[in-house]
Amino acid sequence: MNITRLIDQKLSLRRSLDSGTSKQRADVYNIVEDVRERGDQALFHYTEKFDRVALRELVVQKQEIDEAYQQLDESLVAVIKQAANNIREYHAKQKKESWFYHREDGTMLGQKITPLDAVGVYVPGGTAAYPSSVLMNVIPAQVAGVERIVLVSPPNQDGKLPSGVLIAANELGVKEIYKVGGAQAISALAYGTESIKAVDKIVGPGNIYVALAKRQVFGTVDIDMIAGPSEIVVLADETAMPNEIAADLLSQAEHDKLASSVLVTPSIQLAEAVKAEVEKQLETLPRKEIAKASVEQFGQIYVAEGLEEAINAVNELAPEHLEVMTSSPYEVLPLVKHAGAIFLGRYSSEPVGDYFAGPNHVLPTNGTARFSSPLNLDDFVKKSSIIAYSKEAFTENAAKIASFARLEGLEAHARAIEERLKEDS
Amino acid sequence: MNITRLIDQKLSLRRSLDSGTSKQRADVYNIVEDVRERGDQALFHYTEKFDRVALRELVVQKQEIDEAYQQLDESLVAVIKQAANNIREYHAKQKKESWFYHREDGTMLGQKITPLDAVGVYVPGGTAAYPSSVLMNVIPAQVAGVERIVLVSPPNQDGKLPSGVLIAANELGVKEIYKVGGAQAISALAYGTESIKAVDKIVGPGNIYVALAKRQVFGTVDIDMIAGPSEIVVLADETAMPNEIAADLLSQAEHDKLASSVLVTPSIQLAEAVKAEVEKQLETLPRKEIAKASVEQFGQIYVAEGLEEAINAVNELAPEHLEVMTSSPYEVLPLVKHAGAIFLGRYSSEPVGDYFAGPNHVLPTNGTARFSSPLNLDDFVKKSSIIAYSKEAFTENAAKIASFARLEGLEAHARAIEERLKEDS
Repeated sequence: MNITRLIDQKLSLRRSLDSGTSKQRADVYNIVEDVRERGDQALFHYTEKFDRVALRELVVQKQEIDEAYQQLDESLVAVIKQAANNIREYHAKQKKESWFYHREDGTMLGQKITPLDAVGVYVPGGTAAYPSSVLMNVIPAQVAGVERIVLVSPPNQDGKLPSGVLIAANELGVKEIYKVGGAQAISALAYGTESIKAVDKIVGPGNIYVALAKRQVFGTVDIDMIAGPSEIVVLADETAMPNEIAADLLSQAEHDKLASSVLVTPSIQLAEAVKAEVEKQLETLPRKEIAKASVEQFGQIYVAEGLEEAINAVNELAPEHLEVMTSSPYEVLPLVKHAGAIFLGRYSSEPVGDYFAGPNHVLPTNGTARFSSPLNLDDFVKKSSIIAYSKEAFTENAAKIASFARLEGLEAHARAIEERLKEDS
Repeated sequence: MNITRLIDQKLSLRRSLDSGTSKQRADVYNIVEDVRERGDQALFHYTEKFDRVALRELVVQKQEIDEAYQQLDESLVAVIKQAANNIREYHAKQKKESWFYHREDGTMLGQKITPLDAVGVYVPGGTAAYPSSVLMNVIPAQVAGVERIVLVSPPNQDGKLPSGVLIAANELGVKEIYKVGGAQAISALAYGTESIKAVDKIVGPGNIYVALAKRQVFGTVDIDMIAGPSEIVVLADETAMPNEIAADLLSQAEHDKLASSVLVTPSIQLAEAVKAEVEKQLETLPRKEIAKASVEQFGQIYVAEGLEEAINAVNELAPEHLEVMTSSPYEVLPLVKHAGAIFLGRYSSEPVGDYFAGPNHVLPTNGTARFSSPLNLDDFVKKSSIIAYSKEAFTENAAKIASFARLEGLEAHARAIEERLKEDS
């Protein structure tokens, strides 16, 4: 982990977004189209090919869920439930109501807010099974009022889904769970097959094949963001504990060799102490190899001239996760312009937010916090404008509206207005 | 315009989204990359090539704006101002504040809402100049608090922008206006050139080159929706006026040969009367050729068994514009699930909303109202989650959070939590 003076450094987290190789893009294109045409038959085919298991049924049976409970400690089920409650509480605060107002001329204007009908949640398989991903993607959809929630996840070679994933889904009351992953699952959600009815939006993280497939079906259905590798920026002064900062940086680094962990501080002493702690703590990590590669390639410590410069650096980075460990974190908050999630103070360690606190862990990565938000309730509703023009308002403004239409060369628009004046005269 | 019985008809507006020819996609790719590399030089090159004018400066000068005012009737300037006020009023109602709450254990959670720093607005050139497009895209950004708004639009062969566009922009106080269009303008907004600093989000309609370029830069910057051709569905019963419905259908049809105008009604009498009116009114339209092609190819009248079935049909179509002209439009409103904008009653002719009423005319097309919303304030802000965990909450839940992390195989996450317990003991 290098220590760099910030002055005259142009900061950037922007690793280039993985848009896949041309072979990957072509493969995904063909898989998506094949599933679109052949439906379930193609799903079984690709599941056998990529997940190495020949399924006869995609839908998860009640028995499989019962078995999952036998494999997980009861206390963990309780933790999942409590996390779900916290997440539900936080997301319920985001709920918006339809609204309207009247103008003096009797016109009513407003916005009708309606949940999406059906949402598909992709849960990645592979080395790590993420029940937290189930909670973070399903709960906002439920709170928003989405009636149909469909979970898809690739089976292992025994044709099973991870117990934690099944339990999380079951605790939330998810009714449709299918054992299918990859680009084939995304195509099924977008276009529908015999077993899986199409949805309106697909959310959830996935590998490059999933990401490419989501990009391909975008427009037919909505998608959430295409997430890049994860990142954390810690903004700390000399009052912070080096061992805690180091542990937080490493918790990010263990995710992915491409993950990025950055400390920005005005204190050279802290910078040096954190560097030493990172090196020490790294040694005993089970995922040492991944964390080490991440730290070496994308780990950075920037020493700023002062707190103000450090905050500017944070805004330039627009990090996914920002921890503020300074003497007065609430005084820093108004100055933070761009960050997915802001963790204030010593006890707001990033994993608190990953699993438990309540805010969503699906966050904008790679500098996109400049223009994107954490997954939230607005992602699962849509708005309809309401226009109820009064006769008074219409009569008063008809000529103006017609003249505006003619300015744009749209005569039929003007006549639609004038047709109503005829009837009134 | 065919009259079709709705029964057993599967309704669909879904014209396939234009994803361009492979030559168009390749051309756009090259233009975007060329501008990214060569900056202004490439902008001048493509402007000369496509817009057939050799510019020496991209930025619009004050003198050009003064000239625009000399070309537009004062009363029209007043109409533009009044429309702008209405649009500002409606969008101001959508403003959301940052919020937070405390749990009993002292934890604070919330959402910080921040405007985007910089937004680019694309205004199409060509046959029709759309000052209303300037109003509808710029005002929400301004109301949201976006500091830098950049307008780009292709110049005509004299190197000028349309007067209406310049005046609308000037009335709104837009400071940066550039004479550049097409894929080259989108690339400039996304990556920046010597003249044009990069923005965070690009909004506004455009032709297939603009749409492809927006899709290409999506991720580097945010984009609004990729709009398809426009559509209207009128839901009417026997109390509605056939001539008014016909005029509204034609106002949609004159936009584009691919536009779609649909009447859904339980009344066969109304269906026949509207058909006759459409044919009659069509004859005298200046844009008759376009409107006729649209009506013949994408115009439809569906006769439903009753109002309920008619409403179901509307929900299946999920139209961009929905006019409800029934005896009790407010009783229909709760049953409408999917529509971009809902116009209630006889005086809410669709052009009222295109120009003047206040709600946005940038709306989800082609059935995407199932999952998308009109352009709105949320498009110009982003949210940051706030997590300030208290010592009490941390101590109480540390073991649970660590166990959840270990369930997901992420040991460094668990240790980040436990590192804090060490210090406390």
